Amino acid sequence: MVDKEPVTAAVLVIGDEILSGRTKDSNSGYIAEFLTQRGIDLNEIRVVSDDTADIIDAVKALSGRYTYVFTTGGIGPTHDDITADAVAAAFDVGIDHNDEAIAIMKANRPDMELNEARLRMARIPFGASLIKNAVGAPPGFKLENVHVMAGVPSVMKAMLEEVGPTLKGGIVIQSRTLPFMGGEGVIASGLGEIQDGYPLISIGSYPALKDGKFMTNIVLRGRDEALLEEATGAVNALIEELLRK
Amino acid sequence: MVDKEPVTAAVLVIGDEILSGRTKDSNSGYIAEFLTQRGIDLNEIRVVSDDTADIIDAVKALSGRYTYVFTTGGIGPTHDDITADAVAAAFDVGIDHNDEAIAIMKANRPDMELNEARLRMARIPFGASLIKNAVGAPPGFKLENVHVMAGVPSVMKAMLEEVGPTLKGGIVIQSRTLPFMGGEGVIASGLGEIQDGYPLISIGSYPALKDGKFMTNIVLRGRDEALLEEATGAVNALIEELLRK
Repeated sequence: MVDKEPVTAAVLVIGDEILSGRTKDSNSGYIAEFLTQRGIDLNEIRVVSDDTADIIDAVKALSGRYTYVFTTGGIGPTHDDITADAVAAAFDVGIDHNDEAIAIMKANRPDMELNEARLRMARIPFGASLIKNAVGAPPGFKLENVHVMAGVPSVMKAMLEEVGPTLKGGIVIQSRTLPFMGGEGVIASGLGEIQDGYPLISIGSYPALKDGKFMTNIVLRGRDEALLEEATGAVNALIEELLRK
Repeated sequence: MVDKEPVTAAVLVIGDEILSGRTKDSNSGYIAEFLTQRGIDLNEIRVVSDDTADIIDAVKALSGRYTYVFTTGGIGPTHDDITADAVAAAFDVGIDHNDEAIAIMKANRPDMELNEARLRMARIPFGASLIKNAVGAPPGFKLENVHVMAGVPSVMKAMLEEVGPTLKGGIVIQSRTLPFMGGEGVIASGLGEIQDGYPLISIGSYPALKDGKFMTNIVLRGRDEALLEEATGAVNALIEELLRK
């Protein structure tokens, strides 16, 4: 499905270990690429701690503002895994052990005793649908527009694959990247003029070091391909003019 | 300075290139470690796009809630660098070219023409103090409790070094990590009981794969060292008991 309205999203990463710097978050970058490929605009990423009130606040704020929310982390068997309860509280619904989730967990690991701690992972808010996965981990779930996924990257990716086909996509943003072998300060004013002439094209400028010299990557992004080509042509002409000087 | 009250912080990353997945954010992880070492609790990370209203909203929300805010990105010479103006607007103060910033830029690069675009980088909100840096980049600034830093990692790190000594530190959180050669589900219930007995110690449980087998890192964190040792002893005893089974 392709929607003409922009489809927007936020990622909510839950975990003290990210905020302490102990673990580096790779999930949000992965989700960002995944959504961009589907024409969904990721407009915000938040990282909050394993704190019920903080999670509830963030879920409420983000789910009201964007088409989709994707959370990662905090759905394991230990006492610090409080995401499911917090999401249920954010939408003011109850939560309990879910028979379908228990059946999936039993089928995945018939050898494993489902003790009280592991059963915690089958606690699913009322009204949620399960997010299964190909790697045999307990399911995540979707409640309203919020997708609750694991924090372990391999499990998160498997859940995202499951979720992908259920998302409405937007018109995919096309991008063109033009390298300019000079600093941002040289090209900035000409680039600003081109941006003024193409309000529907987003022109970004990213400085980088290459072989010890400053260079600038100009990235043009937009949904209208003809307009994008036109603006790209204008930036190309600007770069050629600057290099002749 | 060591403060008995918790000293808290938020990081605000500004940039479409992070949200599109094109660039991976490494700055927030670096700042997280930097703050943790100083006993400052990083409580939230937000990534927002190059959008004035979004930046203003985030600056207002975070600066009101935490002791310190650290922003990265959006202070270059191009049209999409709008952080300084947005931060000025968030605090309802004016902004103009700053003589001290211009002098620094001239001294750093006497060979470089300060054209209109480059001069944009000397736009500093009224009442802000400059954040100099050892790498010769234009300065960032501090307004109220918000530190505005570059997005290029090497420049951001140099600015953070400058800022470090001006921050009040908290009592540094000590941590102990105990590896448990088994899954989370086995240790979860015992761990939850220990957590209940030590509310001032935060006990986290992080599953990992090692040599193809599930293991769990138990991380205990707290400001009271004697209490931390006591809780660590309790987790150690739990691990030994589970391994004997």
